[in-house]
Amino acid sequence: MTVMTSTSNDLAAIAQRLRDLDICILVTRDGDGTHGRPMSNNGQVEFDGDTWFFARRDSAAVREIESDPRVELAYSATERGTWVSIEAEATIVDDADENHRRWFDELGRWFPEGPEDSEVVLIRATALRVRAWGEAGDLDVRLAD
Amino acid sequence: MTVMTSTSNDLAAIAQRLRDLDICILVTRDGDGTHGRPMSNNGQVEFDGDTWFFARRDSAAVREIESDPRVELAYSATERGTWVSIEAEATIVDDADENHRRWFDELGRWFPEGPEDSEVVLIRATALRVRAWGEAGDLDVRLAD
Repeated sequence: MTVMTSTSNDLAAIAQRLRDLDICILVTRDGDGTHGRPMSNNGQVEFDGDTWFFARRDSAAVREIESDPRVELAYSATERGTWVSIEAEATIVDDADENHRRWFDELGRWFPEGPEDSEVVLIRATALRVRAWGEAGDLDVRLAD
Repeated sequence: MTVMTSTSNDLAAIAQRLRDLDICILVTRDGDGTHGRPMSNNGQVEFDGDTWFFARRDSAAVREIESDPRVELAYSATERGTWVSIEAEATIVDDADENHRRWFDELGRWFPEGPEDSEVVLIRATALRVRAWGEAGDLDVRLAD
């Protein structure tokens, strides 16, 4: 296992592992406990350290992140022998322009009012450490602040 | 979404969702942060509320559970449209008889010395709440203490 600070090569290696892994279990901390739920990263193609999720302003995920920003993104593709854990610090981004930039039509299934809906916000999860396991070998990358 | 206390029907419904989902990302709490890693539940066939994992006594997972027992088991089978989150309280079980009862040969790949190895312990994760999402509908079961 390799531990290193991140370089563009590391980001490319992580992006390779995340390819086609568009749904993770987003785990938030809630006081003494944890909560997890599946969330789509919107088929993000290039991993630059940040992962973005659309969410409702009044959702438990948003409320929990506002209280405790440390989150875990758990990706599994057991049928392909690929597992990824991203430890991240999350922030809520409440910015209609950002909503518009990141919006795509499939999201209408969950957010029928579209990106203008004032109840729709973004969660930005900034990776602190990414670990991956699988047939392609193990990765352990600590991302520079 | 249904919230209920558990019955044998609930356990059967959860077992149905967990079928063939033998690897989760086990998320532990470590002070202000979290750590995740893939762990096998050893192809557990009947879910009774407890999930068992073999681990090394000196592993980070064991150390973190000893400090903070609250864990999250994150299961994804995106290709089948199934996601499960188990919020659990974990304990370390250091019992050679239990190791023997739960041992099977494939584990030799990770624990070559076998169940007698004094470095091999079990993590028992007792579910507090199980949520599942997917094509078969959503589940939200709080397990009775």
